[in-house]
Parts: sequence; C-alpha cells; structure tokens
Amino acid sequence: MRDVIVIGKGPAGISAAIYLKRANIDVLVIGKGKGSLEKAEAIENYYGFVEPISGTELLDRGIAQAERLGVEILSDEVVGIKQEEGFVVETSNSKFEAKVILLATGMSRAGLKVKGFEALSGKGISFCAVCDGFFYRNKALAVIGNGDYAASEIADLNNFTQNIKLFTNGLAITTDKLAAGQVTVSDKIIGIKGQDRVEAIITDKDEYPVDGIFVAMGTASATDFAKSLGALTEGINLIVNENFMTTVDGIFAAGDCIGGFWQVSKSVSDGANASRHIIKYLKTSPL
Amino acid sequence: MRDVIVIGKGPAGISAAIYLKRANIDVLVIGKGKGSLEKAEAIENYYGFVEPISGTELLDRGIAQAERLGVEILSDEVVGIKQEEGFVVETSNSKFEAKVILLATGMSRAGLKVKGFEALSGKGISFCAVCDGFFYRNKALAVIGNGDYAASEIADLNNFTQNIKLFTNGLAITTDKLAAGQVTVSDKIIGIKGQDRVEAIITDKDEYPVDGIFVAMGTASATDFAKSLGALTEGINLIVNENFMTTVDGIFAAGDCIGGFWQVSKSVSDGANASRHIIKYLKTSPL
Repeated sequence: MRDVIVIGKGPAGISAAIYLKRANIDVLVIGKGKGSLEKAEAIENYYGFVEPISGTELLDRGIAQAERLGVEILSDEVVGIKQEEGFVVETSNSKFEAKVILLATGMSRAGLKVKGFEALSGKGISFCAVCDGFFYRNKALAVIGNGDYAASEIADLNNFTQNIKLFTNGLAITTDKLAAGQVTVSDKIIGIKGQDRVEAIITDKDEYPVDGIFVAMGTASATDFAKSLGALTEGINLIVNENFMTTVDGIFAAGDCIGGFWQVSKSVSDGANASRHIIKYLKTSPL
Repeated sequence: MRDVIVIGKGPAGISAAIYLKRANIDVLVIGKGKGSLEKAEAIENYYGFVEPISGTELLDRGIAQAERLGVEILSDEVVGIKQEEGFVVETSNSKFEAKVILLATGMSRAGLKVKGFEALSGKGISFCAVCDGFFYRNKALAVIGNGDYAASEIADLNNFTQNIKLFTNGLAITTDKLAAGQVTVSDKIIGIKGQDRVEAIITDKDEYPVDGIFVAMGTASATDFAKSLGALTEGINLIVNENFMTTVDGIFAAGDCIGGFWQVSKSVSDGANASRHIIKYLKTSPL
C-alpha cells in the first residue's frame, strides 16, 4: 500500500507531490487531461516568470519538475474510489491502494457545446476575469452565465470596460448581484463566430459582435468521488478543515476543488500546505 | 496620494503589486535588500521551475516581471510610517503618501555574529528545514536555537537523519517539544569552521564536526512599524483578518510577516489574495 495517491496533475496536485516526495513519502500522482489551466493563453501574474507563459507550458514544467525529483505520474482516468483498509483508487486500466488520498481535481468550468466554442477557447474565450480582463480595456465583452459567479466576473471586468453584455443562454437569472441596468441577452446561443479570434456570438435570434467572451458557468467535477464516500460540499466546493482534510478521514483536498481564489498561486500554496498536514497525519496512521 | 504602497519586494510584495497593477491600481513598491530568500542556495519545490533556482535569481525574476508590467519599484529603506489623511511612508531619502499600506516585509531570521557565519551562509548553513533537509540524508546536523521553532525544525529534519545536535548558544531551553534524549550542547558558539562548506561548529569549549547547520532563532522585524500604529501581533507575527488586513484600518500584511508556512508559494498566494481584498477596500475608501 502506498502512502499517498494524489488525483490531479495540475498546480495543486504537483506542488503537493513535490513536497511529499522530498519528505520521503511514497506518492503516486494520477491524472488525465490538463484541466482549466490548459485554456490559459498567457499567464503573467504567477510570480517568477518574467515573460508571460501559457497554461500548457506551465503544466508541462510542473510535471517535468516533479519527475526530475522522482515523483511517479500516471496518465490515466480515475473512475472510482473505495474505502477499505485504506483507499482503493480505480482507474480505467488498474487499481491502486493508499493510506491517504489527496484530491486536486480542479474545477471543470463548463463550456458550451456550440459551433466555434472549442476552436476559439483561448482565442478570445476566457474562463477567468481576474486573469484576462486586463487584455480587454474598453473592449466589448460578453459574459456567459446566469448566477452569482457571472455577476462576480462582470464586477471584475468593470475595472476595464463598461461595455459588457450578460448572455444567459436561455436560462433564468439566479443572482441578485447584478448592477441595475445590466444589459442582458436571454437568447439561446447557437455558435461563436470568428476566424483567428472571437468576433461575435450568434444566437437563435441575432448576431452580437464582441471582442471577448468570459465563461462563468461553474459546475461540479470529480468532487463526486469524494461525495460518494461521504465528503460534504458547499455549493460546488469540497469542504476541508484547516488541515485541508475533507469530512472523510484520510481524504484531503487542495486547489480549485475546495474553492477560494481560482489562481495558480493559490493552488500551488494549497498543495504545499496540504502536504505538510498529510505528513503529520501519516505519522499517526495505523496502516 | 497613491492608492497603495507595498513595503517589501520579495514574493509576497511583488505578487501583490502585479495583481494590483493589472487591476489599474496606482501602486508603488518600496524595499531594501533581499530578505531571507537571498540565502536559499537552490529552491526546487516552487511549482513551475524544472531545475532548481537560487533565491537571488527568483527574486530578480519577480522584480523584472513586475517592472515589465509597469510596476514602479523603489530601492530604499523605510524608516517610518505615519497615519495622517491616509498614510505617510518615510524612507531614507523621501516621503510618499498612500491610501493603503501593504506590509510584505518578511521575517528577519537572525544570524549569528561569529566568525565564518556570514561567509558560509547558503554553504551548509540553512534557514529552513522543509526546504533543505532533503540534502542532508543521514548526515550530521546542528540546529541552532532554544525554543519551539528549533524543536519544530528538528522534527522536520528527523525525516532525513537522526544525527542532530541542538546548540542553544548558551541560552536556556524554552520549549517542551523536544524529544526525550535530544542531544543538546549549551556551549557558547564562537565560530563556524569550513573552507567551501561548513565543516564544524566551534564553541568556547570544543569543536563539533557537522555537515550542515540549521538556524532556528526567529526574531521580529519590520512589524515594528505597524506595531507603532497600533497593529497587534501574536508572537512575532502580525495578526490579520480573513481579508489580510491588520488590526489597523487600511494596513494590510502578507507573506512571512503574518506567519504560517514559510514557503515561497504561500507568500506568493498571500500577495495575490491580499491584492484582491485591497481592491475591494479601495472602492469604499473615502480618500
């Protein structure tokens, strides 16, 4: 039985694995795909990188860094977690046992299954106002969403432009945090238009020229595994205590899946901190 | 009057300044020296750097990154802060006004004023067990200190070696967290011996061969400025609320000076988070 299985190979999971490995802990990282960071065109607010770096490059560097230190990383999809003597993590191809699980599964920020969306993601379609709002000073923006998250993104984007339309994609507004007079389009979105970059949103009724689109429709992700073992959530976030442990003994969580500021720095810090508490926890583990 | 003056140009201060600048906030960073990170020989646990990076290089990169984004950074020593209409920061050469102060002054980790100490810092003399313990597997180590901090460093180092002597440098032990049987030397230290690397600790009574020395004698630093304005501390750390504001309205703090995990990632994350709360605070500021 291994000491720790980390699920997720983004900033939180890899940061934790690096600390665990350096503390002589037997750790395995399992992850598939690159998560939301892959869509980041240019990150310029993560400390230490003079020039902007793409999300993909940062993810690749993290993985190379961990592997250089001897961390074993498996690219596979986790399809289930069971609690026996310790935990059993099932992947598409195998099974692994560990005393402790660290969930660092990020947040699947739902996209739209419409023409042009996938192709233009990262080319005018963004998932983070704090990260990318800066690039759209006095531009025409669309925010897609209908709840508190969308309202919060609009508030952040107002630092750069007042020209923002909210697209609910046919859904009812569920937030009371929009400013009075917020321009709202409730048409159904049927496509995103643009050659190399976003040019317009096409709905079932009209075409709306925009310079950028911010997607703000949060949905739950791999927190489902933890929930099935009894972990409690608040909204879409796993609840953790001050030691980064969920409400299930032995299952820890870090990064976007526990909520807070959706930034690389916060996930990296979460991972480092969680590792420290996992090391303490292992010292008292009966397994 | 500026919006924000950040005091300190390490990871916490620069990370905050980057976020503030990108949110269109008028920010000035004032700092002198490079703080404790300068003494880090090789950092290999900060996410995103495949190869180890020295503390000095990381600090330089952070400053270059902020300057590329247009952040103004002044190398000067802050000699006082006064509260008037807003705050007045006095440096050795000038005065600056701001609505908000962010203290990111780090932690001055006291060294020893003995022969060889300065020259061998970073060459076998370390200030962080979590960072450097890894390099000393089964080696002979000395921890210099006499309180809880020293005990905590020894516990971390025990993951790598059992051969650890505690040197109190003539002081009485003030912690009850040492393991029974901890070898302790209470001689006065008079020098550190070594050519390119640490070889031994020389006391007033004897010479003790060691492969590495961990210094664990924390002392208060520029928190004194904040204290003089009424900010409360707990031990050597500034107390902040969940918004990173000290007990003085308008003075925020981030990084090592508020305690917690003394790691780059935590300071970077603190700075990013604090900036978010400072931006909110400025929106309601009457100044």
